[in-house]
Amino acid sequence: MNSYSSKLLEEAVNELSRLPGIGRKTALRMALHLLKQEVAEVERLGNSLINMRKNIKFCKECFNISDGEVCEICSNPKRDFSTICIVEDIRDVMAIENTAQYKGVYHILGGIISPMDGIGPNDLNISPLVEKAKSKKVKEIIMALPTTIEGDTTNFYIYKQIKHIEIKLSVIARGISIGDDLEYADEITLGRSIINRIPFDNEESM
Amino acid sequence: MNSYSSKLLEEAVNELSRLPGIGRKTALRMALHLLKQEVAEVERLGNSLINMRKNIKFCKECFNISDGEVCEICSNPKRDFSTICIVEDIRDVMAIENTAQYKGVYHILGGIISPMDGIGPNDLNISPLVEKAKSKKVKEIIMALPTTIEGDTTNFYIYKQIKHIEIKLSVIARGISIGDDLEYADEITLGRSIINRIPFDNEESM
Repeated sequence: MNSYSSKLLEEAVNELSRLPGIGRKTALRMALHLLKQEVAEVERLGNSLINMRKNIKFCKECFNISDGEVCEICSNPKRDFSTICIVEDIRDVMAIENTAQYKGVYHILGGIISPMDGIGPNDLNISPLVEKAKSKKVKEIIMALPTTIEGDTTNFYIYKQIKHIEIKLSVIARGISIGDDLEYADEITLGRSIINRIPFDNEESM
Repeated sequence: MNSYSSKLLEEAVNELSRLPGIGRKTALRMALHLLKQEVAEVERLGNSLINMRKNIKFCKECFNISDGEVCEICSNPKRDFSTICIVEDIRDVMAIENTAQYKGVYHILGGIISPMDGIGPNDLNISPLVEKAKSKKVKEIIMALPTTIEGDTTNFYIYKQIKHIEIKLSVIARGISIGDDLEYADEITLGRSIINRIPFDNEESM
């Protein structure tokens, strides 16, 4: 039994608990917190969510989330449009942008191939990527998908789609994290980092 | 740097991360989740929060959250209005209601005395409680506040306010939880549970 003394509260808790990772107890805590806030503040929260959902667009170039037709990255003339980095979603773009090491553009797949979740190649932005690869403006495609079976499957699927096009295809380096002890690394990561070793003077110092 | 590619997304993340226990990463995950939902669904979430904040009332009897002037518990003629259980907030009411062991009514303080957080007796619903205690309709007041310094301080403050009134004042039993091993109980709880032992045949079996 979960007897809320108020239908309004119950409704709010129901809606909040639909958010990912939010159970009913956390949702209740949030709702009670909101009840203590000013009306204007709760309106700002509610309206910002509705506003975002209604007005947000996806960049027609890279499928990044955007306020306009083309996102800030794709409309920046300083970026290198001959290099495309393929990522799963917008969070990966933010992570790579935060490194300040990448000057190319992105292509957001909107997910990875995952038969378990019913996500096939047609649910992802793969054909626009193949079009871009064919356009001859692109010289290199960098795969930056997760190192999981799903990520590898997606990498392989994309590889098969563009292998007949003359283009450089690379994948981001996997290996021991900076600052990590070798003894704690998993065997596959350590094994790969030995196989894929690079010349000593080639490594960029951090 | 946290470069969101969209101002709308950034605003939504800012607002979500003001919720208790929600950091910016979780807020971003929530916002991206909402972007995948139907517009109608996001509107339902946003509006349910605004609606709740605008229209919710506090029961004029017990200060419970309510849709009307008087909450469902206080307007239920089957409840025992001669017994009042004092609790910190509405979550405690729900916890006690879930036990189905209590037929009296409640009085929600709206917090406990906590000088560290700047909460004094005047910030809580204590004077209406004293009025109720004086009204002679109430026979027993049960203290069900947290077993913390703040809870004890609040208990003692309320005790001082009503000790001159002829009324039974009790506090919920503290002791070893059902199913717990003695060896893992903390000393204070175990000590108190020995001091406050009850006759064997008195204990209600679960």
